[in-house]
Amino acid sequence: MAFVTIRDIAQEAGVSVTAVSQILHDKGRFSEQTRELVRQTAERLGYVPDQRARAMRSASTQTVGLLVPDLRNQYFADMVSSMEEELYRRGFTTLIGSYGERVDRQDAFLRSLLGQRIDGAIVVPQGGLSQGLQLLIERKLPLVFVDRLVPGADNVPFVVSDPRPGLEEALDQLAKLGHRVIGFVAHSALGSFSVNERAKAFSAAIRERIPSGTGVVVDCNSTVESRSSALERLHNAGVTAIICAYSPDAITMLGLLQERGIAIGDAVSLVSFDDIAAFRLMIPQVSVISQQADEMGRLGVEMLIRRIASGTEAAAHTHYVPTILHMRGSCGIAVA
Amino acid sequence: MAFVTIRDIAQEAGVSVTAVSQILHDKGRFSEQTRELVRQTAERLGYVPDQRARAMRSASTQTVGLLVPDLRNQYFADMVSSMEEELYRRGFTTLIGSYGERVDRQDAFLRSLLGQRIDGAIVVPQGGLSQGLQLLIERKLPLVFVDRLVPGADNVPFVVSDPRPGLEEALDQLAKLGHRVIGFVAHSALGSFSVNERAKAFSAAIRERIPSGTGVVVDCNSTVESRSSALERLHNAGVTAIICAYSPDAITMLGLLQERGIAIGDAVSLVSFDDIAAFRLMIPQVSVISQQADEMGRLGVEMLIRRIASGTEAAAHTHYVPTILHMRGSCGIAVA
Repeated sequence: MAFVTIRDIAQEAGVSVTAVSQILHDKGRFSEQTRELVRQTAERLGYVPDQRARAMRSASTQTVGLLVPDLRNQYFADMVSSMEEELYRRGFTTLIGSYGERVDRQDAFLRSLLGQRIDGAIVVPQGGLSQGLQLLIERKLPLVFVDRLVPGADNVPFVVSDPRPGLEEALDQLAKLGHRVIGFVAHSALGSFSVNERAKAFSAAIRERIPSGTGVVVDCNSTVESRSSALERLHNAGVTAIICAYSPDAITMLGLLQERGIAIGDAVSLVSFDDIAAFRLMIPQVSVISQQADEMGRLGVEMLIRRIASGTEAAAHTHYVPTILHMRGSCGIAVA
Repeated sequence: MAFVTIRDIAQEAGVSVTAVSQILHDKGRFSEQTRELVRQTAERLGYVPDQRARAMRSASTQTVGLLVPDLRNQYFADMVSSMEEELYRRGFTTLIGSYGERVDRQDAFLRSLLGQRIDGAIVVPQGGLSQGLQLLIERKLPLVFVDRLVPGADNVPFVVSDPRPGLEEALDQLAKLGHRVIGFVAHSALGSFSVNERAKAFSAAIRERIPSGTGVVVDCNSTVESRSSALERLHNAGVTAIICAYSPDAITMLGLLQERGIAIGDAVSLVSFDDIAAFRLMIPQVSVISQQADEMGRLGVEMLIRRIASGTEAAAHTHYVPTILHMRGSCGIAVA
């Protein structure tokens, strides 16, 4: 007998399976003698209630779902690892999912999470208020959004990064190095709130920080062709420095620049969002506007646990974590 | 009424909750009239059975657990993404966990997975036959090991990488470039079967492939101090080329070499296991012995699905995926 079931207890105690089930759930009408017999038999046989069965009765499963767009993106891998670490420290098991930036897969995972009756979820959402997100909100599952905000989901607390402090500092530093025509690589096809916020913040900040400067905004998607074409357009516009809103774009563009023999930090300066490990390992090292992924992960977990404890009726808290600039070798004096 | 429960159906149909539950499960003794009334009421109210409740009755939840040591390690992030992609294509939801190379966390996640009654699991295991792994095997959960093998778990099919083809090719190429004293960085503290196999394969292959050569094997752990000390010992032994068994060690060592002004691909040649994106982005690009993570992920999923279909009593299949060498700029002619 590998595992004791209520069937084993019923057989041993000479009562029906239904009686065992009801007694162990403190339900039904049975004599105290029968109740005692069943409880003692369960204890003697070493019966352990199935975790899921227990979860259906009690509010807490000590399990939290975590959904991110893409684990191949080091930024999300770092954030997930920091959240999982923090959750484990607090006694929670983490079920991670990733959806490859596709809303249908995001919603499929969210529906599956609801079936598992987890205690709560931390989601880096894609796009708007999708069916899956609406379902979670309707079911009043404790929920926190991290990294990206969903317009219209006013009752969900969120931790997002404020792109402005790091971006303004980057423009100040580039201006000091003599850069006047500065390119910005957007990625609107991603449908990411925070990536789009960076583009808005750039357009506002360039006028403020470099009054004599020009901002050239181009857009790309996740194909090499699109990134190559965006780079071409920036080159033709005469930019001497480039800021990428989305780190996978920067990684491909660095490769494209190297391939074409364009010296990074010399012929062109480059700053990317996301402080991922690879950027510190390259030569020259890549300047970044860091969102402090670890800090955001820790804050997200703290907010979720507060939400689980206080219920979803409590007011939604929001946190803006300021970005920080790390200047490195990929930025140099502007070449005329 | 956000979600219809069996309680709602009972109220609406004027029968007991137990009756509704039994009728919807095709159990109990009721008149065909009562059965029909309950079924029609359930349908009319739009009752959707709870996924977990359904999972307790039926064998399949279309959910698979995936456990890897570390998502910050790009190699595992790539493998997990390829497995998740393949599982989604086949209609499965994936619950991912990572355990930071710690056996206690691995076992905590495995216990939690059992509570969720998933259809099966793919695990990159740490160390030996831990309690958590034994529990999974005892419960006859369809299980596949990927990347690492667990001695003693003979009934579990596995996909592991064969380190020899890529390693032998690397030694042949280094010999052609004039290297005779070749260092190997092991990482025994990891307790990883496959990383340890690489060290064994190196010691065997160096005698075979470079009869006049010397192999210098050093060991390190995951601290910068230990990696720095390992590099020192290799330098003192006069090696001109280094092969790292574990890519995070290589990444730190590349940084250490750059910091000390030692030209990679010139003063020292370096080859690492794991074909991670960062290695292709560095200058010079880093030569790698690739385990073909995508291919291993796809094979693992295929084997698990076969296992789920055929039951765990079927014979365990094993797959060795050959490693492949990708020679890049980090290897150059040996400097005397």
